[in-house]
Amino acid sequence: MVIVMAPTATAEDIEEIVTLVGTAGGEAFVSRGVSRTIIGLIGDVERFAALNLGGQRGVGEVMRVSTPYKLVSRENHPERSTIRVGGVPIGPDTVTLIAGPCAVETREQTIEAAEMAKAAGATLLRGGAYKPRTSPYAFQGLGEAGLRILAEAREQTGLPIVTEVMDAHDVPLVASYADMLQVGTRNTQNFALLQAVGKAGKPVMLKRGMSGTIEEWLMSAEYIAQRGNLDIVLCERGIRTFESATRNTLDVSAVPVAQRLSHLPVVVDPSHSGGRRDLVLPLTRAAIAAGADGVIIDVHPHPEQALVDGPQALVDGDLHDLAEIMRLFPPLLGRTQVTTALPTP
Amino acid sequence: MVIVMAPTATAEDIEEIVTLVGTAGGEAFVSRGVSRTIIGLIGDVERFAALNLGGQRGVGEVMRVSTPYKLVSRENHPERSTIRVGGVPIGPDTVTLIAGPCAVETREQTIEAAEMAKAAGATLLRGGAYKPRTSPYAFQGLGEAGLRILAEAREQTGLPIVTEVMDAHDVPLVASYADMLQVGTRNTQNFALLQAVGKAGKPVMLKRGMSGTIEEWLMSAEYIAQRGNLDIVLCERGIRTFESATRNTLDVSAVPVAQRLSHLPVVVDPSHSGGRRDLVLPLTRAAIAAGADGVIIDVHPHPEQALVDGPQALVDGDLHDLAEIMRLFPPLLGRTQVTTALPTP
Amino acid sequence: MVIVMAPTATAEDIEEIVTLVGTAGGEAFVSRGVSRTIIGLIGDVERFAALNLGGQRGVGEVMRVSTPYKLVSRENHPERSTIRVGGVPIGPDTVTLIAGPCAVETREQTIEAAEMAKAAGATLLRGGAYKPRTSPYAFQGLGEAGLRILAEAREQTGLPIVTEVMDAHDVPLVASYADMLQVGTRNTQNFALLQAVGKAGKPVMLKRGMSGTIEEWLMSAEYIAQRGNLDIVLCERGIRTFESATRNTLDVSAVPVAQRLSHLPVVVDPSHSGGRRDLVLPLTRAAIAAGADGVIIDVHPHPEQALVDGPQALVDGDLHDLAEIMRLFPPLLGRTQVTTALPTP
Amino acid sequence: MVIVMAPTATAEDIEEIVTLVGTAGGEAFVSRGVSRTIIGLIGDVERFAALNLGGQRGVGEVMRVSTPYKLVSRENHPERSTIRVGGVPIGPDTVTLIAGPCAVETREQTIEAAEMAKAAGATLLRGGAYKPRTSPYAFQGLGEAGLRILAEAREQTGLPIVTEVMDAHDVPLVASYADMLQVGTRNTQNFALLQAVGKAGKPVMLKRGMSGTIEEWLMSAEYIAQRGNLDIVLCERGIRTFESATRNTLDVSAVPVAQRLSHLPVVVDPSHSGGRRDLVLPLTRAAIAAGADGVIIDVHPHPEQALVDGPQALVDGDLHDLAEIMRLFPPLLGRTQVTTALPTP
Repeated sequence: MVIVMAPTATAEDIEEIVTLVGTAGGEAFVSRGVSRTIIGLIGDVERFAALNLGGQRGVGEVMRVSTPYKLVSRENHPERSTIRVGGVPIGPDTVTLIAGPCAVETREQTIEAAEMAKAAGATLLRGGAYKPRTSPYAFQGLGEAGLRILAEAREQTGLPIVTEVMDAHDVPLVASYADMLQVGTRNTQNFALLQAVGKAGKPVMLKRGMSGTIEEWLMSAEYIAQRGNLDIVLCERGIRTFESATRNTLDVSAVPVAQRLSHLPVVVDPSHSGGRRDLVLPLTRAAIAAGADGVIIDVHPHPEQALVDGPQALVDGDLHDLAEIMRLFPPLLGRTQVTTALPTP
Repeated sequence: MVIVMAPTATAEDIEEIVTLVGTAGGEAFVSRGVSRTIIGLIGDVERFAALNLGGQRGVGEVMRVSTPYKLVSRENHPERSTIRVGGVPIGPDTVTLIAGPCAVETREQTIEAAEMAKAAGATLLRGGAYKPRTSPYAFQGLGEAGLRILAEAREQTGLPIVTEVMDAHDVPLVASYADMLQVGTRNTQNFALLQAVGKAGKPVMLKRGMSGTIEEWLMSAEYIAQRGNLDIVLCERGIRTFESATRNTLDVSAVPVAQRLSHLPVVVDPSHSGGRRDLVLPLTRAAIAAGADGVIIDVHPHPEQALVDGPQALVDGDLHDLAEIMRLFPPLLGRTQVTTALPTP
Repeated sequence: MVIVMAPTATAEDIEEIVTLVGTAGGEAFVSRGVSRTIIGLIGDVERFAALNLGGQRGVGEVMRVSTPYKLVSRENHPERSTIRVGGVPIGPDTVTLIAGPCAVETREQTIEAAEMAKAAGATLLRGGAYKPRTSPYAFQGLGEAGLRILAEAREQTGLPIVTEVMDAHDVPLVASYADMLQVGTRNTQNFALLQAVGKAGKPVMLKRGMSGTIEEWLMSAEYIAQRGNLDIVLCERGIRTFESATRNTLDVSAVPVAQRLSHLPVVVDPSHSGGRRDLVLPLTRAAIAAGADGVIIDVHPHPEQALVDGPQALVDGDLHDLAEIMRLFPPLLGRTQVTTALPTP
Repeated sequence: MVIVMAPTATAEDIEEIVTLVGTAGGEAFVSRGVSRTIIGLIGDVERFAALNLGGQRGVGEVMRVSTPYKLVSRENHPERSTIRVGGVPIGPDTVTLIAGPCAVETREQTIEAAEMAKAAGATLLRGGAYKPRTSPYAFQGLGEAGLRILAEAREQTGLPIVTEVMDAHDVPLVASYADMLQVGTRNTQNFALLQAVGKAGKPVMLKRGMSGTIEEWLMSAEYIAQRGNLDIVLCERGIRTFESATRNTLDVSAVPVAQRLSHLPVVVDPSHSGGRRDLVLPLTRAAIAAGADGVIIDVHPHPEQALVDGPQALVDGDLHDLAEIMRLFPPLLGRTQVTTALPTP
């Protein structure tokens, strides 16, 4: 931690900081300049934080120099992690395709979409039974009936299920069906939910907040980790910017940046990033090329009838191209496509 | 609703849209141009939405022309509403000062802060017992013990309490203490929470999402209203932008814009907007001058010891200036300062 | 300047930094922590910048602690400046109203608008003869013919002229007519233009870049100042954000923030910020209440015929309300309205 | 064009619009709904724009449905264009590597960097003799002396030169040395400069504005095209967002989006997007995978001594990896790497 004193700080102000730091078991190194004094702190950052140094007289700015997340940080865990979902790996050696319908609407649509996903090379099935919708008048998902349909689709296709949970108190129910719990972009800082999925005993896919910084995203992951669950996959899904040609702006740089800061796998959602079918394949290629550990993609047998996000779902005619991307790109990155659940080593 | 067909749309594509609209009980007016055709729809927008017109062949773009929120819209309710919190009005004829500590830390600090608030002219007491914190290692609030302290502060000062609730399942507990429930910026699209506070029988202060558009904010209010609760106060608290000199960017224009679109009162939080003590008074003046129906402000007896947001809390020395603003500015806007709970008319 | 070394930095890396700093005549204070070392630098920041310390081996981050602008900074010039434009003051003791047509379209429209401005209490006349337009097919302004019309309007009304210049090589021509040169938001980092207006011998109104930070804005002012011209007025005109209900988002906090960092006056453009007539008066009030030293407002006798920005221009019916704001608000801020060119003290 | 009337519009208001549109040679189709009336306009959009319909009484909103750029639009020019720079193609069949130093600092550094560029597979040399710098105290480039050094580097390596021009009046001088003129991100709406490069008879690389929408970028290209120059290459270089982990946020979706809207080639600058050396190669891969027609990359023999942007320059050790990307990725996109200037067909 570094404290930059205000130009108006007095010798007493500086002395007080040094004393305070000492009471917290730390050491303070004072560098006096012509117009300002800088104090470097060595010691326990948590204890320094409790001192509220920013509120002391004469303090201009307090700058943190170490990362505020510990469990998900790569500093103490240099090797990148592989997470397994129903046996399917997501990690640094592979590229995993997760696909399925945005929302579970009917049994037929879901199973058809699951077959489409499998045909394209997916090894995990996505699908929402609980849908966060901006409007209270929009379709909100089938709830538990949707979870049962997903379970049936899993049985038919063999694909483990990734599905969203929106409320802390639904976690046990959703976890009883799901292989992986998804926390959506509007809930990235719903801390009650993060703590609940942290105790659920299932892997978690944590979407980045619509306007969340990478650091905030990792702090949210830390909430989950802190409850004992380190089976977390980060999912970049586009951020909110001034550009309106796309629904969100895919921050493809977030993939290598998050991988450098955290040992957790990072996947990309090209469907929700662009919000347009014609962008899904280019963004899928870009994501894998940037180093994503997987992609999660919407498919729909009849997108013109979709109740949610039809305009971004891939259709039958796209599956061959998607399968080709999954076959050709991973080797260029020194990775293999996940084609089936690998045996746990 | 207006549909702009793609330049490649065929006569059949257009015919199909017209037929579809007819099946939904609507009328379609077709305007054929040189390169594009436009179709205007008249009828029930909800039913049109269910048609997924954007997914039909030949459709370029679907443009909505009416507001997607009904209950909170001013279109059907031209008169602006006044909400009462423990008898204290928030509405178009008055300017209400809500003040108190950001977080309830101790009994002494809370009561001292409540007295400060009252001295500055506040008629409602703010204070958080449940605190959403980016880091899991930060102080998370005292929970129910904090609520009890708030109730004691209410008893001593007579000020009704505004306090945050973060989880749908805490709503009954918090509502048993609070006069007004606050939904924070990270939870503006926590739909389970919105529905829960909609049923709680207490007025709600709904903060704008950190990166929420005004329309999304009103849609979130609609979630609450739809459950039968129209006692909602909107709170602008700064949005996320590229500028880092302030913690958030106060969107002061959101006050008149939201007031034009919705009949609900709009207040401003100058403390969290700027995140800096030196900006609180200028932003308070700006908010009232822009037409805010109230302001909500952090005060703290000893901000250098505050566990949360000390750098933005007003201190004793600021109270006189705040009281002066509350005295001098409302009359210029044709309003009166709320100085006590007015009798319900 | 503070250097935070990477966790992997070696003792040699640190030694090299200390040596480098010494060669630049500075002193380096080394604080060794458990996982990281921090080096505080004391000396000439310009010389340190030339060392490219960020590029040295083992360096994690270089943090600047002093402002990079000198001439416009308030650190060395604590008293806020008053700038005079044709005798009219813009500064901390007053609130100045600048008004006029967005663009000079015809002689009649311009003179009519100038009379409207005067009636509302303006003491400076704005009007564009050179218009930056996103589309090459849009009206680009009348050029020198427009400047002649402005000069005529000045003669008739006595109001000194503020007008935009878009190209460094037009500066002498525009300066031969104008009392104040305006640099628009798209040119805030057109450094050739900044240097040219810095040598023009006329006061300059520098708009903030559409996506410029406050620091970048002050750096642009420094470009002008460095050429010998300190008669600069900063103009906040809204920044680009995700919100589309308004044309731009007025960053009202930028007023007190910029005034704290710089001694230059700060005015606000409520017309271009919101881009909507119905927001001009609320934003004018907010700007003055936040401490703006003036406001610059579009008026138009027939906005429905305006070639540029008609939807945001005030009309005859608004002038009385504007005049009332100018009369009532400044005294609450301890200021006087400028009602005429004050004699230079 | 579609006009949505306000709910308060009268029959006379609507009649007046219909009449106005008729006077402009257009046809108006009126669709009356329960609460609103919609008017579809068919005819010459330019003439409609001159009517200032948004300013008419009773008008709620005017929505444009055709693109405002003509010459660069793909609507009238469905085949994507290939631009040649000194014989080197940039277009849909190839991927072109442009590399070189950010700034020309010395003869040795420039020639060494040019040799690095060539070794990595570059067929065009980038390098700045005029540098736009936020601070007036920073190195501003060598000017014409720098252009002479670039010409010498071209002679030694055979690589045609891409270099920035910042002021309309420097265009003839810079064009006398350069093979391609670059317009930087701060000048994307410097319309005087756009018009000047439009007449210079040299291909132009047009960077996207830091906060420019894709539509504004294409409008800026239209300014150049309108002066008779269609040899324009668009360059995505990152946009400004709230995320501070990277210097800018690479908007990789802009590549396919701009290619769909315009026939012009689109290249990506991974160096300035991320501003970090460790991100250059991942972002280069992502750009090519998204369909970029080329990439432009900073290289420097001694980045720790660079006067500009050292932290983002690739070094010797990176060249092999860059060359491998250029060899392996284009074939997956059905493209060939440009390895030498192809003979003009």
